[in-house]
Amino acid sequence: MAKLVECVPNFSEGIRQEVIDALAAAVRSVPGVILLDYSADPNHNRSVFTLMGTPAEAGEAAFLAAKKAVELIDLTKHRGEHPRMGAVDVIPFVPVSNITMEECVALSRQVAQKIAAELGIPAILYEESASAPHRKNLADIRRGEFEGLADKLKQPQWQPDYGQPVAHPTAGAVAVGARMPLVAYNINLNTSDLNIANSIAKIIREKSGGLKYVKSIGVMLEERNIAQVSINMTNYEQTPLYRVFELVKVEARRYGVSILGSEIVGLAPMNALVDSARYYLQLENFDAGKQVLENCLLPGNSDE
Amino acid sequence: MAKLVECVPNFSEGIRQEVIDALAAAVRSVPGVILLDYSADPNHNRSVFTLMGTPAEAGEAAFLAAKKAVELIDLTKHRGEHPRMGAVDVIPFVPVSNITMEECVALSRQVAQKIAAELGIPAILYEESASAPHRKNLADIRRGEFEGLADKLKQPQWQPDYGQPVAHPTAGAVAVGARMPLVAYNINLNTSDLNIANSIAKIIREKSGGLKYVKSIGVMLEERNIAQVSINMTNYEQTPLYRVFELVKVEARRYGVSILGSEIVGLAPMNALVDSARYYLQLENFDAGKQVLENCLLPGNSDE
Repeated sequence: MAKLVECVPNFSEGIRQEVIDALAAAVRSVPGVILLDYSADPNHNRSVFTLMGTPAEAGEAAFLAAKKAVELIDLTKHRGEHPRMGAVDVIPFVPVSNITMEECVALSRQVAQKIAAELGIPAILYEESASAPHRKNLADIRRGEFEGLADKLKQPQWQPDYGQPVAHPTAGAVAVGARMPLVAYNINLNTSDLNIANSIAKIIREKSGGLKYVKSIGVMLEERNIAQVSINMTNYEQTPLYRVFELVKVEARRYGVSILGSEIVGLAPMNALVDSARYYLQLENFDAGKQVLENCLLPGNSDE
Repeated sequence: MAKLVECVPNFSEGIRQEVIDALAAAVRSVPGVILLDYSADPNHNRSVFTLMGTPAEAGEAAFLAAKKAVELIDLTKHRGEHPRMGAVDVIPFVPVSNITMEECVALSRQVAQKIAAELGIPAILYEESASAPHRKNLADIRRGEFEGLADKLKQPQWQPDYGQPVAHPTAGAVAVGARMPLVAYNINLNTSDLNIANSIAKIIREKSGGLKYVKSIGVMLEERNIAQVSINMTNYEQTPLYRVFELVKVEARRYGVSILGSEIVGLAPMNALVDSARYYLQLENFDAGKQVLENCLLPGNSDE
C-alpha cells in the first residue's frame, strides 16, 4: 500500500484570486497529488490548501507552491488579521496512511532544506520536527511576525534550522513541520449552565492537568440554549475519542448532567472513529488496514 | 464521487491453476477494475473472485470472466464438494460507495441479460434482484445442481429470467443478483457452556424470531475453552453491529455471563464500524461520506 501524507500549507494571500489560482495550479502540476480543498479568507488575507499524495509528491507540491508564493506575494505590502511571518507561512505534513510520524518529520526536513537552499527563505522546524522544545509551538515561532523577523532571527534560540538567519526581503520566513491530524470534537451537555461546561473543559484538558493531547473550552450554543465542551484533539491515537467522551460523561454526572450528543467538525481520519467502535464492541485482533473494505481501495493499493 | 460496486463471482474451478489464472486475467483486462482477492478451494473445486469498479467496469469484468469460464470449464466433468449449477455459478453485485441497491439490481439485470444473450446461459436473478420471493434464496435456486437443471428449468416457478429454459450443455445456468455486503461477526462469551451460546444465538437470529438480517449459531472455541455466538450479518445498515452486540450482552446477563470480546472475520465496510462509533459517541449530524478523510481519497474522487 502506498504511503500517503497530507500537507496543509498556509499562504499569506486571501484576496487576489489570480494569486490563489496560481498557487492551486502549482499544487496540481505535480502528477498524483490530489488537491482536496483550498479556501481563502479575505479578512485574514490568508489561504489554506489541503493536498494529499505520496511523500515525494506532497513535498514537491508544497515546494512548487512555496516557489510560486515567493514570486507573487510581497509581505512588505501585506495586511491581514491573521498573524504571519512568511509569504508561505507554515507547511505542516500529516501522516494519513501507511506512514509513520518519523517519515513525515524526515519529509518536513527535506522540504525545509530545499526551500532554504533554492528560494533563500530561512526555515524553522516546528511541532514534531522541532529541533528544541521551545520551538515546537507555532505561535511562539511566529510571535513578532514578519516585521519582527530581522531581530528575532538574530537571537540564538530562534536561529533557523535551514538557511541564513536573515529574513527573505519579501517572503520572510517559513515554519515547516510534521504533526498529527487535528480532530475538532464537541460534546453537548444537557444543561444551559456554561459554568458546568467550563469546569469540565478545565478538568479534561492537558494544560490544566487533564488528558494529554486535549485542548478544550466551554462554549454556549445560544440557539439551542445548551452548554458545550468544545475540544481540539491533537493526537487521536494517543488520546482517542471514546476516552474523552466517557470522561466528560463521568464528570458531567457530578452535576446531574447528561450528554445530549457529540459532533465532529470537518474531517476526521477513519481510524479516529474505527478506534472507538473497536473499544465499545470490544473487538479482538482487528486490523483496520487489512479488514476495512475501503482501505483496499486507497490510491496506490493494488492486488499485484 | 465515483459509484463503486463490488462483485464476487464464483466459478466452478478450484484445481486447474491455468484456468484460474485465465479468469483473473479476464477480470484484469478491464481498465479501472481492481481485483482485490481471489482464492481457490480444491476440495470444493471452486474459486471466488472479489473485484471492484464502477458499475460499467465491474459488469464488464464479470461478463468477460463468465465468457472465459464457459470456454474453459465443462460441468459434465466437474466434481467437487460445493453445490453448483454453472461454470460461472453465481454473480453477486454489492454496493460499496455512492451507489444504491436499486442501481446494483439494475446492473445485475443487465449482466444477466448479456450472459444469456451472448453466451447462451440461462440466468436466474436472486436476492434483491429476484423476480419472485421464492427465487431470492440461492440455495433454493441451486437445489438439484447442474445435473438436475434440465428438469428444474422446465418448471414454471424456475423459468430463467433471461435466456431459454434449457441449460447450457457444459456451462449450466447462472444466478445473478444484488445483495448487501456480508459481515461475519463473532461474540465470545465468558463461559465454556455451549448451550448458553446456542440459546443466545437462537434468540438473536431472524429465523427463530430475533433480529432481521441476522444468522447465528453457537460454536465452541476449543483452544480457548469458551463458547461463541457466531453471526452472519446480511444487512449491517438495517441491523447494525452495536445492536447485535448489546442484545447478546443483555441476553448473556441472564446466565451471569459477560462478553469477553468480539471479532470481525475478514473484510467489513467502513460504515459498519463508523455506524457503531456514531451510536456509542452519540454523534450528531455526522456524514461519513464527507467527514471521513479517507473517503475523500477513494478512486474517482477529485477536487475538480
